Formats: sequence, C-alpha cells, structure tokens
Amino acid sequence: MDLDQLIYQDIPLTNAMGLRVLDASEHGTKLHLPLEPNSNHKGTAFGGSIYSAAVLACWILVSETLKASGLTDQYIVIQDSTMEYLHPVELDFVASSQWKNSSHSQKFIASLKRKGLGRAELSAQVTCSGKICAQLNGRFVVQI
Amino acid sequence: MDLDQLIYQDIPLTNAMGLRVLDASEHGTKLHLPLEPNSNHKGTAFGGSIYSAAVLACWILVSETLKASGLTDQYIVIQDSTMEYLHPVELDFVASSQWKNSSHSQKFIASLKRKGLGRAELSAQVTCSGKICAQLNGRFVVQI
Repeated sequence: MDLDQLIYQDIPLTNAMGLRVLDASEHGTKLHLPLEPNSNHKGTAFGGSIYSAAVLACWILVSETLKASGLTDQYIVIQDSTMEYLHPVELDFVASSQWKNSSHSQKFIASLKRKGLGRAELSAQVTCSGKICAQLNGRFVVQI
Repeated sequence: MDLDQLIYQDIPLTNAMGLRVLDASEHGTKLHLPLEPNSNHKGTAFGGSIYSAAVLACWILVSETLKASGLTDQYIVIQDSTMEYLHPVELDFVASSQWKNSSHSQKFIASLKRKGLGRAELSAQVTCSGKICAQLNGRFVVQI
C-alpha cells in the first residue's frame, strides 16, 4: 500500500481533502492539496484545510524520521500550535515541513531512545504558486 | 435551506466531517461532530478536524452577529490563531464559541459600522463528554 492510501486509511478526512504525498522522508515532507474540496464560500481555501495540511506535513515528517531511525511510535500527538494566515490561497496548494536543522532531529531521536519520549518543535509552510500563504509552528509529543 | 445545508454548500469539507449545527446565534454557536469521519489511526479525533470545528464555531458566531445587526459581510477571514490540545477526543465532540462579553461584540459592530472593517478576537472550546479537550484563540478580520 502506498503512503497516500495508508494516510487515507488512518485519517479518512484526508481522502475527502484529496491529499497527495509529493515527498516524504526524514529530510522533509511535501503534500499537494487541490483547492476544490478544500474551498470556502469565497472560492479560496478554508482555514481549517490549510491548517490540517500543515499539521499533516509535520506529522508525516515525524513519522518518517522515526522510521529512518528504526523506531516505532506508540503515539505522535500535537500538543499546541500557532498559525498565521498571510495571504488567501486561491489555487491548489502545497504544505511542506522540514526540521529546523539536523541537530534538532538528532536530539529528538536521542531523547526518544533514552527516555522513550520526545518533543519535536516543527514548522510548516503552505504555499500557493510559490508564495508562502500560511505558516504553522507546532509542538508534537512522541512516545515509542 | 437550513444552516447545515448552507455550510455544506459553502465549505464542502464540513459535509465529509459530518458537522451539525446545534445552536447558532449572536450569543453563541455550538457544533456537533461525529468521531468516525474525523478519526485518526488511534481512534481519537484528528487534530486538524478539532481545529476546523473550533474555527467554524467562531466563523458562524461572527456571521450570526453580523446578521443580527443587519450587516452583510464582504469577507470574514481568520488572521491568526493559537490552539492547545489538552486531552484526546475519544468520542463525538462539540465545538462552541461565545463572545468574551457583550461589550466586545458591541465594539466590534461599532467599528464595522464606522470603518467598514473590524477585528474580532474569539475563543472556542472543543468538549467531549463535557470535558474541555481543546482550546482555540483566533483573530478574525471582517469587512462589510
């Protein structure tokens, strides 16, 4: 089963959102979302869809980072977040997430191996025609 | 057309979420969401669905407040937000939003009438079996 299908099975709303994984590894995650199923009454993207795409980009990045380190999670949950909407999203959009730097992901994995628990502070951007339209900062708690 | 149907038409994702309006007026908004279409791989509610429900509770409250004052919006958009996830949502859930106090909504309406533009700072709670599981604070910009 490919990653798209796994995500649809795990989080059925992603199927209604038409989410498609463009890239997913411990180095970065990139998701594509069509505007139409995520639109609001003004024909731009619904703020909840933009947020959901950004959170999913972070969640998949954490999941891929664990896999690359040979770890299996008990859970990956979002603890808190801040979201800024900078410009309306008027077309299909992309949500992408990366680690701030490699030492951040290494510390996270080291904490998980030592304590079975780790916290990851991640950010994600939502872009439309190459322009950053929204920015998420989120803290995730992971137990292995 | 009832409010549920109008919202499904305006924001199609709300149909996939199974959103149902329990209460909607300028005094407060209450939305019901079933767990199943909003679940994640752990059988609890997906963080993006919880956020979307909370944002919609605020958005409907703003919209109903405008209607009650005889105003029609050009747009109601979310500018930024903070979200805290306090407990997992393990059953169907309710998102509710109210004005902090009546003077806050009166100032908002006065600003709209004077300048054609207003900002509303709103909060919403997501509860499950009566327990607050998540808390949103959001700033909305409205033009009439």
